Amino acid sequence: MPRIEVDQIAPVNTTGYPLPYGHAVAQRWYRRLGPASDLTDFGVSHVVLKPGAASSQRHWHEDEDEFVVMLAGQAVLVEDGARTPMGPGDMAAFPKGVPNGHQLCNESDADCVFLAIGRPASSDCHYPDIDLHLSGGVYRRKDGSLF
Amino acid sequence: MPRIEVDQIAPVNTTGYPLPYGHAVAQRWYRRLGPASDLTDFGVSHVVLKPGAASSQRHWHEDEDEFVVMLAGQAVLVEDGARTPMGPGDMAAFPKGVPNGHQLCNESDADCVFLAIGRPASSDCHYPDIDLHLSGGVYRRKDGSLF
Repeated sequence: MPRIEVDQIAPVNTTGYPLPYGHAVAQRWYRRLGPASDLTDFGVSHVVLKPGAASSQRHWHEDEDEFVVMLAGQAVLVEDGARTPMGPGDMAAFPKGVPNGHQLCNESDADCVFLAIGRPASSDCHYPDIDLHLSGGVYRRKDGSLF
Repeated sequence: MPRIEVDQIAPVNTTGYPLPYGHAVAQRWYRRLGPASDLTDFGVSHVVLKPGAASSQRHWHEDEDEFVVMLAGQAVLVEDGARTPMGPGDMAAFPKGVPNGHQLCNESDADCVFLAIGRPASSDCHYPDIDLHLSGGVYRRKDGSLF
């Protein structure tokens, strides 16, 4: 049946971020729906942010579009010089190459849930707030040194 | 601002379906969010189905994945030998090449709203219930004749 039974997919909270940058997403619990439903054209992640958790470090991709839609709860979309409340049904788009780092932060006292759609990151990803850069699938400091 | 102001995008109800097959989607009002927000990796359509309307004729694509998530209201996912109720937060995936025609039908007495994610159709699309076939971007009868 094409309907996705989310509860049948185990959520994970793994991250490739080196410490200490992984702490911000330790309570980001996500399910990759693409592999669970044989989609390959694009990826869909179902994400639950516990109170205090962030969707990611604030970042932008050179060559991957991203799209999010809120399904439940409240989050704050943080970007350069702006904080935008996001509630159920609210959507945001992050076109590739726009150098405006973004993240969703759950500053409420209840879980929030959103979907994130995109392609696997293969281009460089920039993190304006922290000493981190992703290139060739490897996280390094901005001076190129490895963690 | 990356947040999408849906109400600022005019909905349309146009369809490429020849008559009489367009009648089923006459009350399908959609907004293409990709062009409105500079996304090109994939398409996102915000769709409102009025009572009685369908998302499409029942169909399946040879080479395009599709994904839907319900945002409001109630619909019925119709596929081969199955009818599945879909409400807010419910999702369904339709991997390319799976020969199981699908559509969402609003059989309720209120609007329903969903997002559809996919790529523009460039492969053949099959319509199991009606005398229609899409190939090379052109709708024909199953015998190849034009409408």
